[in-house]
Amino acid sequence: MTNDQDYKFHHIGVLTNNIEQSKKELSNLGFYFNKDIFDPVQEVDLSFGVNDKNLLIELVKPTKNSKILGLLKKNGAGPYHLCFEVSSIQEKEPDLKKRGFICVLKPTRAIAFDNNLISFFFSKSLGLIELLEK
Amino acid sequence: MTNDQDYKFHHIGVLTNNIEQSKKELSNLGFYFNKDIFDPVQEVDLSFGVNDKNLLIELVKPTKNSKILGLLKKNGAGPYHLCFEVSSIQEKEPDLKKRGFICVLKPTRAIAFDNNLISFFFSKSLGLIELLEK
Repeated sequence: MTNDQDYKFHHIGVLTNNIEQSKKELSNLGFYFNKDIFDPVQEVDLSFGVNDKNLLIELVKPTKNSKILGLLKKNGAGPYHLCFEVSSIQEKEPDLKKRGFICVLKPTRAIAFDNNLISFFFSKSLGLIELLEK
Repeated sequence: MTNDQDYKFHHIGVLTNNIEQSKKELSNLGFYFNKDIFDPVQEVDLSFGVNDKNLLIELVKPTKNSKILGLLKKNGAGPYHLCFEVSSIQEKEPDLKKRGFICVLKPTRAIAFDNNLISFFFSKSLGLIELLEK
């Protein structure tokens, strides 16, 4: 199988309807939270936690106008995307599309990631993945 | 917030309806798969992959009799549980229940984990978590 060395795992995204409660539970499970931020593009509250193995979790609470509120209502809280760092989202897009991924959020500046570009893709075999350009 | 040092992050569980396709996509994203196994208790095909940061992913494909086939049909493919290693599931259970977790799979020997005990819990703020006793 091919292995594209340019993809570097970045974080797990976890949906929640109660960010403080989720922080409390993940803290009990070994994660330390030190960054809370509101993303006005996706209209979500975010909180970032890390454990002693440097595994990063992004808690995502959609506000009432967020496009992913429907996903929370449908699926409930829990892990829902994997994010990978890449050197260029634009370079990855044609290959991902050939692989059957659909772009569900076009490259967008993300305040939570120092205004770097993020993009979301969906596939039937993996669900949602996020790319973060660095 | 409390932090129980006994919980050690173990893996991310990813649901799929096509394990070979999911392996292919995750391989492209930096994971190496080297263990396939059928779990007759949960009636699921499993495949384990790891990346260069030692992050472990468990692909889970429910067979037609599996209790989690409904979850796949409802939510589609994608990450759906976080697993934590603990020294004793029995010792954790009362605290998790106090925290609002419901046990959805009682401690069960898991062939994929050297016949060690696993158990699943559900909470409204985190979704599903798995405990693995080692």
